[in-house]
Amino acid sequence: MNYEHVFAQAIQSLKDENRYRVFTELGRHAGNFPKATRHLSSGDTQEVTIWCSNDYLGMGQHPDVLTAIKDATDRYGAGAGGTRNISGNTHVICELERELADLHGKESALVFTSGFVSNDATLSTLGKLLPDCVILSDELNHASMIDGVRHSGCEKRIFRHNDARDLEEKLKSIDPSRPKIIAFESVYSMDGDISPIKEFCDLADKYGAMTYLDEVHAVGLYGPRGGGVAEREGLMDRITIMEGTLGKAFGVVGGFITSSRNIVDSIRSYASGFIFTTTLSPIMSAGALASVRHLKKSQLERDQHQERAATLKGLLMDAGLPVLPSVTHIVPVMVYDANLCKQASDMLLEEYGIYLQPINYPTVPRGEERLRITPTPFHDDTMMSELVAALKDVWGRLDLRQAA
Amino acid sequence: MNYEHVFAQAIQSLKDENRYRVFTELGRHAGNFPKATRHLSSGDTQEVTIWCSNDYLGMGQHPDVLTAIKDATDRYGAGAGGTRNISGNTHVICELERELADLHGKESALVFTSGFVSNDATLSTLGKLLPDCVILSDELNHASMIDGVRHSGCEKRIFRHNDARDLEEKLKSIDPSRPKIIAFESVYSMDGDISPIKEFCDLADKYGAMTYLDEVHAVGLYGPRGGGVAEREGLMDRITIMEGTLGKAFGVVGGFITSSRNIVDSIRSYASGFIFTTTLSPIMSAGALASVRHLKKSQLERDQHQERAATLKGLLMDAGLPVLPSVTHIVPVMVYDANLCKQASDMLLEEYGIYLQPINYPTVPRGEERLRITPTPFHDDTMMSELVAALKDVWGRLDLRQAA
Repeated sequence: MNYEHVFAQAIQSLKDENRYRVFTELGRHAGNFPKATRHLSSGDTQEVTIWCSNDYLGMGQHPDVLTAIKDATDRYGAGAGGTRNISGNTHVICELERELADLHGKESALVFTSGFVSNDATLSTLGKLLPDCVILSDELNHASMIDGVRHSGCEKRIFRHNDARDLEEKLKSIDPSRPKIIAFESVYSMDGDISPIKEFCDLADKYGAMTYLDEVHAVGLYGPRGGGVAEREGLMDRITIMEGTLGKAFGVVGGFITSSRNIVDSIRSYASGFIFTTTLSPIMSAGALASVRHLKKSQLERDQHQERAATLKGLLMDAGLPVLPSVTHIVPVMVYDANLCKQASDMLLEEYGIYLQPINYPTVPRGEERLRITPTPFHDDTMMSELVAALKDVWGRLDLRQAA
Repeated sequence: MNYEHVFAQAIQSLKDENRYRVFTELGRHAGNFPKATRHLSSGDTQEVTIWCSNDYLGMGQHPDVLTAIKDATDRYGAGAGGTRNISGNTHVICELERELADLHGKESALVFTSGFVSNDATLSTLGKLLPDCVILSDELNHASMIDGVRHSGCEKRIFRHNDARDLEEKLKSIDPSRPKIIAFESVYSMDGDISPIKEFCDLADKYGAMTYLDEVHAVGLYGPRGGGVAEREGLMDRITIMEGTLGKAFGVVGGFITSSRNIVDSIRSYASGFIFTTTLSPIMSAGALASVRHLKKSQLERDQHQERAATLKGLLMDAGLPVLPSVTHIVPVMVYDANLCKQASDMLLEEYGIYLQPINYPTVPRGEERLRITPTPFHDDTMMSELVAALKDVWGRLDLRQAA
């Protein structure tokens, strides 16, 4: 058996399909976000502006966050040294969980090593604890939710994206006595659209289902304390389990769920991906705690963020570029071709120092390739003018599709 | 459907079985390891000595590590801001991967958010890329490997723990043309025993199998540069994929694999749990890099660690306590009962300020409950005398089983 050959072929097939990914090696500049140094394989470097970060508010460089991290380093040291159960249950992660439970007005919270692990561990464990459960999952749910549903071993029903009517058809067809979970996101990160949370909650009540809401692209960003879209819409008490991340708007790393005491305690007690892993570092917990506390009190970053996104969308539309009609901070500009998307991205990076990663399959369906722009409060008017001019130039030279 | 009731019952059944886990809330003291402050639910605190940390060498407080972390905080900020593919590919994680590839003498390395994710993502992806693959898995493999094997969808064969004869029986019975992976660990963390790596590699050659070796309880600790047991035994080039952690002996957080360029590139390109998650923070990568570099050059910590473990085993044996005949740094003292194990642990903590988490099912089989002691270079003779005296006292009062 020539194993190397199998793996070489697996790589070659990605290259043949133009979807082999080359990572851009970056050093961000704390205090000067969104600027970064790009490291080339030649050993040279290039100064670039990042336009595709999920550090949506630049909290990754906020002084409160960095001070909390350095203080925690001096106080506690680097790692947690163990799992939550075996010596790794740090005081600061417990404080963080209390803060997150409060953020969502829930009895309890649980922090995981990542948002991916939160979804995978929680959904798979829920499915195992609820005998004969059916999980109803939006067709555009994130890979981590798909993995969680698959690993639960439950029957799954995929409903059309954000489609309450289709969801109801599916719910109707399931035996009323069976446990049901409706799993969906608030903000879908590649299109920037928002799900009909209230309608889904109404259906959950009508058909006796639990609701599982992924707010990873919304926590910190929406609602008066940054609880997410469900907070903004006054619906947090109608969601059974909310899931979020500490690695995007909060600017650090890690994931979490909030829910009732019994549900959180069950995940804590049964989820393999939670139990058997080293705890998030106390340093990262301290940084996340500072960030969550800051964004609970401060509306400024959220207001600036929305203003910047609206301004950029206007500029792109005025320039005739094909922006998706996103209702959030996410600004997708469509290319509709993997090869051209990669070429546009390369030109922007090489010639303009503008870093916008091409978004290709499997992150989006084939034929829906795009540049996904995430303006932050730190992207000023000058940067925006430069971006729009560069995009217009690239669009012309590659003869890309204009706005309809 | 009363969901809350189902979850309340799930918790109650753990309590009925005496295996409901209560986490001990700790603040470690950087610079004064293994001392920590325990936070009680009353709001009171207690000073304790940790005896069950997986920060085996105390690298979590090493000055080089803490300096690297604080420098990286000032330089890069908190989080990576994205996945490896979308703006989160930090310069420092690339440096770390080059350092880890070198540690194992392999072409490439890949860093994950945790050791758990390394095993789960890698094994599940290998199984998907190798059509009709069979995974042969040691019966005592870690939960993360079990999850990875299960998620691969492959046929699996469980062989008896560390048993080359049983493994060969299994290998013989499989069609020679089918791809095969032998998945095992070097140091098994609950018993402290070591697998017959050379015999397993010989069998892999004989039957055309790949080898997957988990060295999470060995990297940093064994071999002249801390490569692990396979390095100590001169066998690294015979292992197809080595897996390790940055969260135990290296004292930080994160996991990794090392292998050939094609295999690492395949995991990088196909593993959902690697692709769709925010990158390990540059701060944590910088801390891990400093730790790996230090332990490549310095044998001092490894020598001290082995001396401390040998000394403690001798003291426990002299005291007639039932120590397992571990050949590593892990020192298990057997209790053989979940309830008594919890009681012993509680008495040690409350009365002596000695923190030794009880190890119960499902971490070990029922009836094999134990206290698992992990002496580090920072556990001095005085602490050891105090520990042995406390254990003798508790053993007497609870009438626990003595050494045979």
